[in-house]
Amino acid sequence: MKKLINDVEKVVLDSLTGVQAAHPELRVDLENRIVFRGGTPRQGKVGVISGGGSGHEPLHGGYVGTGMLDAAIAGEVFTSPTPDQILEATRGVDAGAGVLHIVKNYTGDVMNFEMAAELAAVETGVRVEAVIVDDDVAVQDSLYTAGRRGVGLTVLLEKIVGAAAEEGLDLDAVTALAKEVNARGRSMGMALTSCTVPAAGQPTFELGEDEMELGIGIHGEPGRKRVPLASAAAVAKDLVEPILADLDFTSGPAIVMVNGMGGTPQLELYILYSEVAKLLKDAGVTVARNLVGNYITSLEMAGASVTILRADEEMLRLWDAPVNTPGLRWGA
Amino acid sequence: MKKLINDVEKVVLDSLTGVQAAHPELRVDLENRIVFRGGTPRQGKVGVISGGGSGHEPLHGGYVGTGMLDAAIAGEVFTSPTPDQILEATRGVDAGAGVLHIVKNYTGDVMNFEMAAELAAVETGVRVEAVIVDDDVAVQDSLYTAGRRGVGLTVLLEKIVGAAAEEGLDLDAVTALAKEVNARGRSMGMALTSCTVPAAGQPTFELGEDEMELGIGIHGEPGRKRVPLASAAAVAKDLVEPILADLDFTSGPAIVMVNGMGGTPQLELYILYSEVAKLLKDAGVTVARNLVGNYITSLEMAGASVTILRADEEMLRLWDAPVNTPGLRWGA
Repeated sequence: MKKLINDVEKVVLDSLTGVQAAHPELRVDLENRIVFRGGTPRQGKVGVISGGGSGHEPLHGGYVGTGMLDAAIAGEVFTSPTPDQILEATRGVDAGAGVLHIVKNYTGDVMNFEMAAELAAVETGVRVEAVIVDDDVAVQDSLYTAGRRGVGLTVLLEKIVGAAAEEGLDLDAVTALAKEVNARGRSMGMALTSCTVPAAGQPTFELGEDEMELGIGIHGEPGRKRVPLASAAAVAKDLVEPILADLDFTSGPAIVMVNGMGGTPQLELYILYSEVAKLLKDAGVTVARNLVGNYITSLEMAGASVTILRADEEMLRLWDAPVNTPGLRWGA
Repeated sequence: MKKLINDVEKVVLDSLTGVQAAHPELRVDLENRIVFRGGTPRQGKVGVISGGGSGHEPLHGGYVGTGMLDAAIAGEVFTSPTPDQILEATRGVDAGAGVLHIVKNYTGDVMNFEMAAELAAVETGVRVEAVIVDDDVAVQDSLYTAGRRGVGLTVLLEKIVGAAAEEGLDLDAVTALAKEVNARGRSMGMALTSCTVPAAGQPTFELGEDEMELGIGIHGEPGRKRVPLASAAAVAKDLVEPILADLDFTSGPAIVMVNGMGGTPQLELYILYSEVAKLLKDAGVTVARNLVGNYITSLEMAGASVTILRADEEMLRLWDAPVNTPGLRWGA
């Protein structure tokens, strides 16, 4: 295992120490492994938080800041944060208007966020709502989830919902928007290589030199099928067609993300985007906004995912709203 | 070789086609492999262009836009663009105020940019100045260069000089600033793995499971020495000490970049940044601004580089000025 680390036991702590050093505008609670936006809690504002296993950076800590998340909770690599951590973050962002939990649909995350919400209600009276993100069309159930997995759509949802909360929408409205975004978005991913979890010390799975894995999740969990290595054009088809088959896309603009899993060069991501854009044009889908880069990763895995959100005009407006986070920044 | 591509011969063209699809605010000349800022040339503004081999994305095409480059010329992977391509870009951005060439110090790039500048002077009367970026403290001469190589400082220089040109500085002033930035910045990099040039089909070099290469450039060319794999703390020391030894850093603020070579997770880059920040604090260097991420890459190479610029207040002001490019974006 070749990694730029000090100690496999301290990977997450050491990395958060770096986040703290690099981003004085954020407040990093190293004990509880929480990245807070500076000046939190903000009077009258719904708190928007997310979290999950580490290893998917910039998700979630990289999306804390103006117009996006108020806090992100970091679990160990590919491991859910504990209810206590989530409770601490929930308390830390509540200013009386309640808190939205954005939870990717993995069994551990769902359970621990639910438990934290119950504790928050009982111990502190904070009103908590949750949205479960389950956008992955690759599989219904996997090793990690019951139902679809939560993957790339999480990035788009955090941006749009974060902008709405910034504008002062109340908890019910923010929650309804989050559920609407989730209903309108789908993703699918693929891998050329595995990643290596530091504590495991060896690749999560093995792929032959001429193989790729379709429908992979963000933890190296099994995908839909293992197939021979194919061209970017064929991969684009393999990812876009199941999404469009699942998403009722009769009209309207789309926000499209071509996301790298961590070890794929930007040069290749643009090649894939070019093919995705052609397929969407042929399908009559208008791409209104796009992201091409590493936004939700699996450590150093080589591969990519495609996320398509059937947006409405209000979602596009919220997408364009100012955002100032380490991972997404514009207009601010 | 596992890559998301269609055809090894068309990697650069296909990728630029993706850039064109993803960024309607840019104008991509596919024939000449040039990414232009929209609305170029701009009356009265000094044109600022750069270019070089592909495979270092987001450098250079990802830095075209408001407040940074007016155009970027893409060569084949790790291969200089031709004088004709550079001439075409020079012509395309000139609006009478002249053009600055930002050239990384590799023999092919220097030769071809010089030839293009001569052609521009003779054929079109465009006044061209050049800055040769040579910030790599690892080696004096390498397979690719005479003198120091040009690496990470190029990103910082393009940002600062681009902002100055945006504000209306004339060609002499922009050129002087570029040379001043180059004089004040140094970099050093390391690799955990090689990368694979698509046309070659196999890794540029081999590293054992317990080895790393110190002082690597951005093309997989040999570094200072091959050493046993070490901790992030030790790597930070190996990179920062030669830079500080070479850079007269008695006082003043620094802009610091911890850059990933393409295949290193953000999680690890923050661990490295944490160690770099500690070393700089101990050395009495104040980090005023920082970047942590993939900004100048070597395809999918795992590894990182550190760049330190001894900035002055004016450079910090220009750093903070609005920028709107695919690779760097703030305040716009």
